[in-house]
Amino acid sequence: MKKTSLPVGMHDKLFKRARVMYEIERDISDLLIEQGFNRIETPTLEHFEVFTDEVSSEHYHLFDKKGSLLSLRPDITSQIGRVIASTRVKTPIKFSYSGKVFKYNEELRGLANEHTQAGVEIVGYEAKSAIKDALLSAKDALKVSGLKNYKFEFSHAHVLQTIFENLDIPETGKKDLAVFIQDKNITGLNEFTYQYPSEFDALIRQLPFLFGESQQVLKKARQLTANKMILSALADLEDLLQELTASLPEVTIDLAQIASMPYYTGLMFKVFGDKIPDAFVSGGRYDKLFERFGAKELTAIGWTLDIDSVYQAIHDAIAFRREL
Amino acid sequence: MKKTSLPVGMHDKLFKRARVMYEIERDISDLLIEQGFNRIETPTLEHFEVFTDEVSSEHYHLFDKKGSLLSLRPDITSQIGRVIASTRVKTPIKFSYSGKVFKYNEELRGLANEHTQAGVEIVGYEAKSAIKDALLSAKDALKVSGLKNYKFEFSHAHVLQTIFENLDIPETGKKDLAVFIQDKNITGLNEFTYQYPSEFDALIRQLPFLFGESQQVLKKARQLTANKMILSALADLEDLLQELTASLPEVTIDLAQIASMPYYTGLMFKVFGDKIPDAFVSGGRYDKLFERFGAKELTAIGWTLDIDSVYQAIHDAIAFRREL
Repeated sequence: MKKTSLPVGMHDKLFKRARVMYEIERDISDLLIEQGFNRIETPTLEHFEVFTDEVSSEHYHLFDKKGSLLSLRPDITSQIGRVIASTRVKTPIKFSYSGKVFKYNEELRGLANEHTQAGVEIVGYEAKSAIKDALLSAKDALKVSGLKNYKFEFSHAHVLQTIFENLDIPETGKKDLAVFIQDKNITGLNEFTYQYPSEFDALIRQLPFLFGESQQVLKKARQLTANKMILSALADLEDLLQELTASLPEVTIDLAQIASMPYYTGLMFKVFGDKIPDAFVSGGRYDKLFERFGAKELTAIGWTLDIDSVYQAIHDAIAFRREL
Repeated sequence: MKKTSLPVGMHDKLFKRARVMYEIERDISDLLIEQGFNRIETPTLEHFEVFTDEVSSEHYHLFDKKGSLLSLRPDITSQIGRVIASTRVKTPIKFSYSGKVFKYNEELRGLANEHTQAGVEIVGYEAKSAIKDALLSAKDALKVSGLKNYKFEFSHAHVLQTIFENLDIPETGKKDLAVFIQDKNITGLNEFTYQYPSEFDALIRQLPFLFGESQQVLKKARQLTANKMILSALADLEDLLQELTASLPEVTIDLAQIASMPYYTGLMFKVFGDKIPDAFVSGGRYDKLFERFGAKELTAIGWTLDIDSVYQAIHDAIAFRREL
C-alpha cells in the first residue's frame, strides 16, 4: 500500500498541470533573468536554525548523518538572506530564483505541502526605487504567468507589530489576538479588548473593517489611534502608494494583513484573485533579516509568487490538447 | 554557526553556475516537450518503500506527522513507475521530467548530495523503437546542454545478474564481488575465484578488461563463458548496437558496468566524458519495475541526465559576464 500511495500533502502532477506549471516557472525565470536579476539556487535542505529559532511544527524536519537537525526549506528568502550575510556577495544585488518549498498544512483540508515558488530579492538599493522595481517585476511576472484578474493589497508591518510589542499581556493572549485578526473575528476582537484593555482598543476592534480603497482606509485608521509609530507607518504607506498607483492595477489596503513571514519590517503586499483564497504573490521589506545571520541591516525587498496558486486560478481558461 | 553554515553535501549556486544550470535544465525540458514527451512532476517526498524494500543508508529519511517513514527521492524513475502502475495513465506513454534528487555521498569527498536531473521514460512501446527513441533523445539532450566530448558505453544487465544469481555463496561474498567489479580490482577478482570457484571464473577474472570497442569485447566475452543466459545477453547487445552505431557518436561496451539502479532488466548505457568521473547520462531497460508496484511487466526504457556533472564538464568553456 505504501508503495503506491502518496504521503499526506504530496501530489503527482501530470499532463496539462505539469506542463503549464513548468511553463509558468520557466517564463517567469526567463523574464527575471532578462530584467537583470541574478539567478540563484539555494539547497532544499538547511540547518533548521536558518528559518526559525525554535523548531516549528509547520516544517518538515530530519536529522542528517552528523546529527544536525535539518529543515526542508519552507521559504527561500531566508536562505538568500543567509547567503548575503555570510558570503562575499557584494551589495547592491538583485537575485531571482525558483524552486520547491515545504510546509505542513492541516491534513483534512487536502492542501499541497510542497509548492513551487518563483521570486526576487532586491538588496542594498535605495528604498523607493527598490520598492518600485519589486512591484513592477511582480506585475510583469503575473502578466507572463497568464493571470488576468487580481489586485494588489498593501499593508505595513509596523501597524500590527506596534500593537503586539506594546501589549503587556501573556503570550497566550497574543496568540489569540493573532488568530482573531487572521480570521477577521469581530466578536473575538471585541472580547479581547474587554479582557486586555489598551490604547489600541478602538483600532483592534475596527481591524476587520480596515481594508479597501486606500485613502478611505488610511483616513479611518488615523481616527482610531494616536500612536506615533502607527501614524508614521500609515504616512509611509500613503507616500508609497501615491507613487505606485499609476503603474499598478487595482490597489487596496488591508491593515489586518498578518505578515506571511516573520522577517518583514515595512511595506508588505499581497496579490489576490477572486476565486483562490491563497495569495498569488507575497512580498515586503525585510531589512532586519540579515541581523539574524550576524550581518548589519540592509535595505531589502522581495516577493514570492506561488505557481500552484496561479495554476489553480488559470487552468480552466487554458485549452490544452493532450499531446501524443 | 548553524545559521550560516550549510549541511554536509548541500551547496549554494550563484551567478554563472546558477544561471547555466538553470538554462541547461530549461533547454533540455523544452526539447523533450517539443519531441512529444509528456511533462510529469512527482513529489520530492515519498514513502521509503517506493525506492527500496529495506531502509538504505544512502537515502535521506524522515518521519512525517502520520509516523510514516519518508525518503527524499533518490531517483525519479521509481516514482514514474509507481504512477504508471497505480493510476489510470494509459500506455504506451512517454514522459519527461526534471528536478532534484538526494543521496548521501562519502562525506570526505566533498560531493554534492543534491543533484538536478532531467530525463525520460518510454513505456509500453515496441522495444527496438523505444530504445532508439531513448538513445536519440539522450543524444539531443546532450547536444542542447552544450557538451561536446563524450562516449556512449553499453552493457547488458543480464551479464552480471546471471553471475550473481547463480553463485551459491554467502551474501558477504556477493557484496565483496560487487565492490571488486566496481573498482576493477584485478587482484580481488582473482582471489574471489579461488575462494568461490564457479563456472564463471574465467569471465569474472577478465571483467576489468571487458571494455572498449564493441566487436572486440563481445568476441572476447564469448570465449570466456558457455552460460546460455549470458551468451543470449551478448547476442542481444550486438544486435542492438548494430542498429545504433550509425546514429550515435563513439560507442563502446563495458561489461563490468554495475547497474546504477537495481531495476534494470536489459540493455544499459552510460555516457562518460574525459574529465568527469561520474556519468553524464545513465539509462536502460527496466521492464520489471512495475511489478514492484503490483502491476504487470511492461516494455520500458529511460535515461537520466545529471545536470551537475554536465555543468562540471562545460563550465570552463563558457564565457560569462556577471550581469548587473
